[in-house]
Amino acid sequence: MGTLTEAKRGRLITFEGIDGSGKTTQIQLLHQWLEAEGYDVLLLREPGGTPIGEQIRDILLSVNNTDMSAVTELLLFEAARAQLVKEVIAPALDEGRIVICDRFMDSTVAYQGYGRGLDPDLVDRLNLLAVGDILPDLTIWLDAPDDALFRRISRRKDGADRLDREKESFRQRTIQGFLKQCEAYPERIRRIDTSGSKEETAKLIEKLVRRTLP
Amino acid sequence: MGTLTEAKRGRLITFEGIDGSGKTTQIQLLHQWLEAEGYDVLLLREPGGTPIGEQIRDILLSVNNTDMSAVTELLLFEAARAQLVKEVIAPALDEGRIVICDRFMDSTVAYQGYGRGLDPDLVDRLNLLAVGDILPDLTIWLDAPDDALFRRISRRKDGADRLDREKESFRQRTIQGFLKQCEAYPERIRRIDTSGSKEETAKLIEKLVRRTLP
Repeated sequence: MGTLTEAKRGRLITFEGIDGSGKTTQIQLLHQWLEAEGYDVLLLREPGGTPIGEQIRDILLSVNNTDMSAVTELLLFEAARAQLVKEVIAPALDEGRIVICDRFMDSTVAYQGYGRGLDPDLVDRLNLLAVGDILPDLTIWLDAPDDALFRRISRRKDGADRLDREKESFRQRTIQGFLKQCEAYPERIRRIDTSGSKEETAKLIEKLVRRTLP
Repeated sequence: MGTLTEAKRGRLITFEGIDGSGKTTQIQLLHQWLEAEGYDVLLLREPGGTPIGEQIRDILLSVNNTDMSAVTELLLFEAARAQLVKEVIAPALDEGRIVICDRFMDSTVAYQGYGRGLDPDLVDRLNLLAVGDILPDLTIWLDAPDDALFRRISRRKDGADRLDREKESFRQRTIQGFLKQCEAYPERIRRIDTSGSKEETAKLIEKLVRRTLP
């Protein structure tokens, strides 16, 4: 291992945002662009990415595990993350690769902290335990100023049933979580406005990533 | 739920100690004695005890998962524990049952903290996150003043190979961990000297447990 100079080490770029924010599309476009520029890129997703992490993912996503406590869920996400960092991300960065991760520590603050109501500071501390000294060099938060679904649900008012309202309330808290994280780590987390076309969004991302590259 | 008076609530009794310390035998004897005294007893083991916990146990014990990081292992133990407390232990205590658990939070301090070299204070904090306000009413640490295996290995000196020595060193650190926990929580954790016969040890345990019972 040894210490690598900043120039030799790879970069960790994470994508954050709610489901439907366009992460998959934008990660694909960034991947293509980086490879065209000659970079060696590794794509990862959370939770998972290692044999142990995929076993943990199965527990987290299984429809039979509806009784899972919020704390158990949090600890499982962090367990999978600790393994991913140690087994895959750290070695890839040592080899100078560009690692792109679909969701990372900020999703846990947004979903398990703000969404499920666990203390966000606690989630932050567990994140640091899981990642050690491997923090993202750049986190891209995909967000839109206007929110079609929210407007629609708001209009319905009493027409929306309890589950719709709970779902929407959870979603709003999650978005609030990403916003709080972005305010807490303004250097690392950059909000990208996704209200333009996907090509326009990709250009905004490329501009940010270019500044971060080795 | 509501608040239950101390008299109505059940009791959580945990057994700690290294492998081979006689936990299984003593738990069985205590179980028989408590049932003969008319108590409703629930026996549990860690990790596991819930459907989610057993899935986590499979990951922890699988021979294929030798690459597991120490932090991942710690987080998985705590995840299984959080689920066990919420889904099984807390409801059983509310029903006034006597819950006996084979290993609990102190094993994690001893093995993952002192054994694997993670910060014992960190393990303690994660323990509290996992158990919430459900602390054991009594923890029985089975220990012996003399240690036959240790004497044997020490005698062999250069005859013991590297793995033997590593194993013995890990074991000694673990025992040290139980001792430190016992010193840190003298009210809750009671050391039982297991150098007598199993019947003598059982009598010592009964005496302690009797004082704790509702």
